[in-house]
Amino acid sequence: MHKEILEDIGEKELINRLGKFMPKNQVSDDCALIKTKNENLLVNTDSLVENVHFNETSICPQDLGWKAVVSNISDLLSSGSKKTIGITISLILPTATEWVWVEQLYKGMNKALNKYGGIILGGDCSKGDEKIISITAFGIQGELELRRNACKPGDIILTTGIHGLSKLGFMMQNKINFDNNISLNKRLINKSIKHFCRPKIYPNFLKNLIKTRSNKKIKRIGCTDSSDGLFQAIQDLAIASNCKAIMNYEKIPKDKDWPRGDKWDEYYFFGGEDYELVFSLPKKWANNLSKLNKNIYQIGYFTNGEPSIEFKDNKKNKLFNAKPFKHF
Amino acid sequence: MHKEILEDIGEKELINRLGKFMPKNQVSDDCALIKTKNENLLVNTDSLVENVHFNETSICPQDLGWKAVVSNISDLLSSGSKKTIGITISLILPTATEWVWVEQLYKGMNKALNKYGGIILGGDCSKGDEKIISITAFGIQGELELRRNACKPGDIILTTGIHGLSKLGFMMQNKINFDNNISLNKRLINKSIKHFCRPKIYPNFLKNLIKTRSNKKIKRIGCTDSSDGLFQAIQDLAIASNCKAIMNYEKIPKDKDWPRGDKWDEYYFFGGEDYELVFSLPKKWANNLSKLNKNIYQIGYFTNGEPSIEFKDNKKNKLFNAKPFKHF
Repeated sequence: MHKEILEDIGEKELINRLGKFMPKNQVSDDCALIKTKNENLLVNTDSLVENVHFNETSICPQDLGWKAVVSNISDLLSSGSKKTIGITISLILPTATEWVWVEQLYKGMNKALNKYGGIILGGDCSKGDEKIISITAFGIQGELELRRNACKPGDIILTTGIHGLSKLGFMMQNKINFDNNISLNKRLINKSIKHFCRPKIYPNFLKNLIKTRSNKKIKRIGCTDSSDGLFQAIQDLAIASNCKAIMNYEKIPKDKDWPRGDKWDEYYFFGGEDYELVFSLPKKWANNLSKLNKNIYQIGYFTNGEPSIEFKDNKKNKLFNAKPFKHF
Repeated sequence: MHKEILEDIGEKELINRLGKFMPKNQVSDDCALIKTKNENLLVNTDSLVENVHFNETSICPQDLGWKAVVSNISDLLSSGSKKTIGITISLILPTATEWVWVEQLYKGMNKALNKYGGIILGGDCSKGDEKIISITAFGIQGELELRRNACKPGDIILTTGIHGLSKLGFMMQNKINFDNNISLNKRLINKSIKHFCRPKIYPNFLKNLIKTRSNKKIKRIGCTDSSDGLFQAIQDLAIASNCKAIMNYEKIPKDKDWPRGDKWDEYYFFGGEDYELVFSLPKKWANNLSKLNKNIYQIGYFTNGEPSIEFKDNKKNKLFNAKPFKHF
């Protein structure tokens, strides 16, 4: 069967086809238009590069589209976005890319937008040697500003869920031999692959924060997501907020079948791409929120001191000598 | 001398260094924040891919930075932006890229922003096989909506300046042998290289349009820029507005030393990257504007009919059998 590739289709026809994934009132023009009503806009740009952030073996185009959108909305949520307006997409694709690949990518993006809100506002497409999906996402700033630099000494450190799963899913998909002595159960394997390919995010996070707020004077709280791993998230908060994080190893939520051992701790702390929110709240607020949502975990606290991370249990500190997730 | 490359610097230090090109109040966070005051936002995304849109021979990194910003602001202006808010930058760079290259790129971007308005709002950087600069630019929609689909039969077609120069500049920089029988004068060569490397745009265009408006009821006019060539610009207007363009070959502004001949007409109409505005106005308005600004030229008109382009001088129509500028 002849596979239709972009070189056959040509740029104009490609743009025409991609236009069908946009709402009917979005006309292709030099610019996209965003209507605002005295609200502040949150903007996030992220690029996914083939063979750096993804490859054909580990993820199918529909999942990749989903994940590209979700990773951008996660950044909006971690800044306190109350509503996703939409995204613009800049695609770089080799001329030999099959049309069906592009179509599946857009289907995955639209699935994520249908689930979490927002539309495709516009974009462009160019040829290049490797596939690159660059998305800019727009959200409306809600009444609470969530910022990396807003953690305070005394704040409790919390997270919305379990880390490391996406890393395990990535290793399973790429058939990486990680530890031959461990037999993982089927449920954990499937859960991990799902976390890696179709990560979920937390559209109600801001609502629940506001609902449980103990002191209405507080307008800013410390927050980021764990897209680069839990360690990196806490380090980013500590550096931006100029305080020291004390972690409670025993309180860190793990899957019940997650294996023990230093290697598995490394996957947990440095894995990345989990899109869990990592944030800090005054004690009372933290307790209110944990009561409302049993899947939010208190994993440590911030204190005065040089920006750094320590475990309450000193023996675990050697973990942090490992290198964090980096792309250069 | 040791040349410092990105692999030596690492991602965190790179982000730190790039942060110095941002205004001091822009803190690195998950998102950039844009404050709006009940105004509509124009958003444009464009990517420049190495060996597709630029190469090391034809343009230095500082000029490339300038051009990347200017090409995005040109799209904002051609939609009726009254003010550029700023840009986000998504860079893909090979690990062997020298730091000085990145620094020069950012210097060029900041030079353009200082000249035309706007700041660097944020961005990200990833490694990849080829250099890609993807910029998203934000502007505020002014009181006139400039849109591709707003041309009307009877409107005069105008343009802000001379086309083809950027194409000639590109050929000079790449030492492409275009026509051995022609000796070009030095002034035209230098002017063309300048047009290619440091294109200029028209920040006062909207103001002058409003100043010369003959009928205040008109809120939308047809407009695009000639980044993909004059032919493509007029074709885009004709298709989006569903009308037919009649061009007057004799009225098309050319450099006084621009050579004659079919080949040179092709460079002129299909060259691209000139960033001149191509737009349409009712006759009275067009005359007012041409009187105010002698560098704005009336080059044809729109009429009822299938979307297409014709010359008044039928002999010239064979030109349009040539293939327009395309990237796939």
